[in-house]
This record gives sequence, structure tokens and C-alpha cells, in this order.
Amino acid sequence: MVPDGREFRGLDGGSVTSVHGFSAGAVYAGIKTAGVGKLDLGVLASDRPAAVAATFTRNAFAAAPVIVSRERVGRGQARAVIANAGNANACTGEQGLADAREMAALAARYVDAPAEQVLVASTGVIGVPLPMECIREGVGKLELHADGGPEMARAIMTTDTRPKEIAVGLELGGRTVRVGGMAKGAAMIHPNMATMLAFLTTDAAIDADFLGQALRAAVADSFNMISVDGDTSTNDTLLVLANGAAGNQTVRGGADGETFTAAVTQVCSHLARAIVGDAEGMTRVFSVEVRGARSEADARLAARTVVQSSLVKAAVYGADPNWGRILCAIGYSGATVDPYAVDLYAGDVQLVRAGTPVSGSREAAAPVMERPEVSFVANLHLGDASAVAWGCDLTEAYVVENSAYTT
Amino acid sequence: MVPDGREFRGLDGGSVTSVHGFSAGAVYAGIKTAGVGKLDLGVLASDRPAAVAATFTRNAFAAAPVIVSRERVGRGQARAVIANAGNANACTGEQGLADAREMAALAARYVDAPAEQVLVASTGVIGVPLPMECIREGVGKLELHADGGPEMARAIMTTDTRPKEIAVGLELGGRTVRVGGMAKGAAMIHPNMATMLAFLTTDAAIDADFLGQALRAAVADSFNMISVDGDTSTNDTLLVLANGAAGNQTVRGGADGETFTAAVTQVCSHLARAIVGDAEGMTRVFSVEVRGARSEADARLAARTVVQSSLVKAAVYGADPNWGRILCAIGYSGATVDPYAVDLYAGDVQLVRAGTPVSGSREAAAPVMERPEVSFVANLHLGDASAVAWGCDLTEAYVVENSAYTT
Repeated sequence: MVPDGREFRGLDGGSVTSVHGFSAGAVYAGIKTAGVGKLDLGVLASDRPAAVAATFTRNAFAAAPVIVSRERVGRGQARAVIANAGNANACTGEQGLADAREMAALAARYVDAPAEQVLVASTGVIGVPLPMECIREGVGKLELHADGGPEMARAIMTTDTRPKEIAVGLELGGRTVRVGGMAKGAAMIHPNMATMLAFLTTDAAIDADFLGQALRAAVADSFNMISVDGDTSTNDTLLVLANGAAGNQTVRGGADGETFTAAVTQVCSHLARAIVGDAEGMTRVFSVEVRGARSEADARLAARTVVQSSLVKAAVYGADPNWGRILCAIGYSGATVDPYAVDLYAGDVQLVRAGTPVSGSREAAAPVMERPEVSFVANLHLGDASAVAWGCDLTEAYVVENSAYTT
Repeated sequence: MVPDGREFRGLDGGSVTSVHGFSAGAVYAGIKTAGVGKLDLGVLASDRPAAVAATFTRNAFAAAPVIVSRERVGRGQARAVIANAGNANACTGEQGLADAREMAALAARYVDAPAEQVLVASTGVIGVPLPMECIREGVGKLELHADGGPEMARAIMTTDTRPKEIAVGLELGGRTVRVGGMAKGAAMIHPNMATMLAFLTTDAAIDADFLGQALRAAVADSFNMISVDGDTSTNDTLLVLANGAAGNQTVRGGADGETFTAAVTQVCSHLARAIVGDAEGMTRVFSVEVRGARSEADARLAARTVVQSSLVKAAVYGADPNWGRILCAIGYSGATVDPYAVDLYAGDVQLVRAGTPVSGSREAAAPVMERPEVSFVANLHLGDASAVAWGCDLTEAYVVENSAYTT
């Protein structure tokens, strides 16, 4: 997933606060009604103003915190993020906007920053007003720590079964810098954007415009290549804060820019795959690599279409080497395909050669399909472009979990 | 669904052979390995050449019978259709094309018609060569009857639990004419095209070009507005044969053209809804009407996106009035939306007014959600266009059924 194959050193127990100048903390504020005592409100702060870049949901019903944060990210600097789980503050009208602004203002007062330098994110049930009394009291009980990242990562979980965190170290202009990240997923995970919430930190000094470029490149190869259920949420938010605490010369592109982009891509890829691996009800993850596509857009489209197919996902659950469903999904993806040229593999086993089944391959593929992670490769033999997408199986447990969420 | 609100008289026990000049028959040929003795091969024939129009899957891996039939429909005339279930003859390479042609030739010999006037359709497992010996023997045992429509409708079923058939009567140019139809669905049902197989017959004399127009208009309001699982199959085929046995003056448009289009739309709508109502594992159907859209394209897009959402489908299964998921799906559909203008209803209960929740509506909507058929109406308040889409719930049974289809 890292474009040039570089892999940066992961830090043991790495989190958003493994990065210099960042602290975080979380409390149980009473917003999660289903999990009394579980952390549900957190703040992540930089000890100095940080360059900021972000991508947000394209859903027309963007939640109030998205509207507020989107406006503030445009100014290029941020000091902190306040986030809650249990309530999405979406479809909540004017009151929702006022609540999102108040939530940010509470955090701004707490970290002593201008209100417009505080971003806000929410996840949970749609259409229920935020319980502001809980949030006011919760912020009063918060304590930020230099090792508070893992607390914060727990505070944004909804149906996630575990927090998703990482930090990597690298050299930029002779200085050691770090990139950390946290994310939550579970359901409503789909390209544009894939994750519900993800926050990245770095102590590298990065020009705000270049930071946006690096983030977009990283997202294209990571969060936008995963799918859980095809639904794009109202609250998807991916933020990166770069506070410059490492003291490197500000990166605006060039070789250092490429190195930084590779590191951000590695962090995003780790988080994106962790989201797929912890999707609601999943038992098995799978990847689909499309090679030999006529264009990168075609490769991405075909790979993503396969990981979104309910029939493919159900076949992966049943460990059924039903490759017809994979070809079928490639066929309706809209990518240019020559049906008599396509090869398809599950792991090392070739299932299809030049568009026709390889005799005996279903039996040969059976053990591959039983693995906890299944890799499919389709070669379209039409060009040089390739892309990889990640998905998870569709299970009865997904249905059970999502058929009674609000009731 | 009938554009001008007309509803034509349904015939008791109506089928494709309720229409003058058509006969049909079916046998168990041994193609369905899982259902010994179940009909799996059928022929539908007209006693004279009929004008023909059709729409086919847009999947790049169009199955061999689709490729053969598409070519033949272009000539504008047909005498018969031969169809089988149990094997899709898809992803079967050159041999598949030869097999599809031979299958048509066997039927052509049987009904004494030129081979290029016989169309062919298959449904079932992908990537397994057609068992031609079974088909040759099967055709030898076929007997066509004037009341063979119901047999033929059974012969194309796969995981369908019941055949889907209808016939209506109407007046065209002072003559009584009939339109009959049959379809099979179950899974891999999705717009462009929605149904796997549907065959319509009429004894009206209809110009072949106009027949195509009427069919496209009917499909836009029926098969293209349903979704079971978002997968577009390799074999989707919708055919209409018009043999002119009623002796009316050939219809090329005008008021009679509108009447005929309305009748075809009624037949297609009945079959499309029957497919949704018999989808794999479904327990409840639901409709989504989008009103007040800026354009018809927007209305269709928004309505279809909602019926395709796994989260909405799971909520319908759980009788959960989780309207946030409906707004969310409208929001990512790509239709133009003003989030502060949208109203949403479940049955008679208003859930959302101007983008914000109506207090107490979840409780009020609970009994509506328990109905076997749930109707949602969203008013975007941006224009005059509207559209209706139909879907079914997502259940554990769907997952079970589709996680072990070939094994």
C-alpha cells in the first residue's frame, strides 16, 4: 500500500500521543447509553498551533460537527480536536450546529485556545440532540496526558470491538519525526470516505497546503479502498495535525515530501485495514487486487466493486470459491474488460484463465478460502494499472447487529 | 407505477400462454442438480413470427445466451425462446457460445422455425459448461401446450419459491388484446437490469421499433426501480414477443401506443414487485417514494439508493424506524438535497420535518414498521419530480443462502 514499497518503523504501543507536543484524555460523560462507564468523550490537543488538513464525508446530510470542522480546517491551523461517541449530532438542525460549536468552545476554554482552532467530531445515533449537559460536565472532568492517546482512541468507539492505533518514526531533513493515528469504524464504512473518524498527528513541520496533498494521496490508497457495507456516513472525518515540534525545516514537497506522504499512507493503510478487520459481524477479511487495467481509475473501480458485492462477501463468509461472483462484479463495475482475457487467482490457485474456468480449481482453492485473510488477484490484461481494495465477509451477525441498533 | 394511473383487467391464472398464438412446455432435463425432478428446461413459442424487443444485462461478462440472443433480437423477429435453469452458461468461453447456439437450434428444429428466430436464456451457476446431453434429451421430451405458460414459468426458477406470472386484457383499435408475462428473480437483482429473466408475450400487432420504446419505458418504472442485493447478473434478459394474432392495426405510437405502454408497464411492475417479494431470505418488502426532487433522474437515484442500502434493509428487517439511515442514503445518493428542507414519512407517520426529527415519531412509527410491506415517502421540496423504488429486507437467511451456493 505504500507507493514505493517503503515501510517505516512502527513504535510499540504507538498512538496519536506518541508524537511530540500532543496530549489527550477521555472520560465517560454519559453519552453512550448502552455502555455505562465506557469512555465516550475525548480531547486531543497540541501544545502549539498545528497545520491542519482534513477530508470529510460527501454526504449531503453532513452532520453538524462536520460542517463546523470543515469551515475551521479552511483556516489552516488547529490546536485541538474534541470528539464523542454515542451520538452523531447529525440531522439535528440549527440546534445541532449550536451544540457542535459549544462543544468546541468548551474544549477551547479547557486547552486555552481560540475557539476557531478547535475541531469537533461525533459518531453514533443520527437524529437525537446531543446531551449537552453530559458534555459540559464531561469536559469539566477531563485530564490530558502525554500518553492519553489510547484513552482517546477508546472514547470514539461505537460497535468497534477494539481501538485502532499506530505510530511510526522516520527521518525528515535529518530530524527524527513521528506520525501517529487513531480511527474508529465498524459499519457505514465505504469509499468517499471510508472511515467514520480518524485523527492523525505528526510533530513534523509541514506546510498546510502540502499536508492536504499528502493526506489526499494517502486516502486514495487506503480509506477509499475499503468497504464494509456500502453506506457513506453523515459524519466521516479524517484529520491530520502537524505541529512542527520535531524542529525540521518545513516540508513543502520534494524528496522529504514523498517520504512524509509514504509515512502518512502507511498509517492510513494500517488504520483502514484495522477497520475492515473489526467490521460489524465479520469473520474473515479479503483483498482484491486488480492488475493489468487500462487505467488506475478502472483498477480502483473494479477492485472496489468486488469488495462491495454482497454476493462475493457472502461467498467469502462461506469459504466458497464462487469466482463467478467476482467476475460478475468486475463485469458490472464499469471498468473496461475483455471477458476473454481475464485471469483470476485465489491465493496461488488460478481459478480462471482467459475468462474460462480452470478445471479442478474449485477443489484446489478450498483450503485457501478457509484462511482468515483471503487474497484475490484479477489480471485484466489490458494495461499496466493496478489497485488493491479490502473488504470483509457478510455474516448473519452483521444482520443481527444492524437490525436493532436504535431500538 | 402505471404512468397515467390506468389499471388493466388481470386474467385469472394469467400467464404468457393466456395470449393468443403462444404455447409453451417444460421438462426436467437434469440440469438442476439440487432439485431432481424439478422442471429446468422450457420452450415458449409463437405460432407465427413475432416482433421482438429486449433489454439485456450491461455486465461486461454477459453470458453466452445473452450474446446470442442480443444479436438475434437486432433482426426484429422471433418465433420462440428456449430457457433453462440450473446453469447460467456464463464465463464458459467459446464452448458456451456454441452450446447456446445449439440449444437454440434444438428448439428451432422442434418448432420448425429458422434458428436465428429462436432466442435463448439461461440462469444458474456461473462457469460450469452446459450439460448439452441433458438439453438434447430434454428437448426431445418437450410438449408444447396452449396452457403451458405456468410450466415454463416453473422451469426458469432457481432459488425462487414460487413462479411469477400475470396476464392482462385491454382494447387496442377496437380489438381485445392481451399482454402476458413471467419472470424469475431471487438474488443478483439490481437496476440495469433488475430481473434475471422475464419473458413477455402479446397478441397485439406492434411495430418492432415501437415495441422497443414501450419496453424501455416500462423497464424504467419497474425492473430498474427494484433492488435485492445490488449485484447485476451476467444473464439478465427481458424479452417481449408481439405476434399480432389479435388482428389489430399495427401500433406505431399515438394513443394506442400509450395504452399499450401502460399495459406493458403494469405487467412489468407486477413481475418486478413479485421478484422483490420472493427475494432470497426476505421477510418484508418496502417501497421508497421520493417526491419534490429537482429532476426525475434525481428522484430515481435517491429512491434506488435507499432501497440498496444494507443498513436500511437491516433496519426494515428489525422493524426499526431508524430514519437516519434513510436520510443518510439519500444524502450519499448524489441527488441534489437541501438537508434543511427534507420531510420523511413511514406510512402516515411523519418522522422528519425540514431535516429534523419529529418528537415522538419513533414510537408512533413502530406499528407501521411491523407491517409486511412498509412505505416510506421522502419529500425533498426542491421540484416536482418523483419516483418509487422497491426493495426487501436483509436477513440472516439471505446470508446463509448465499454463503454456500456452489458448495
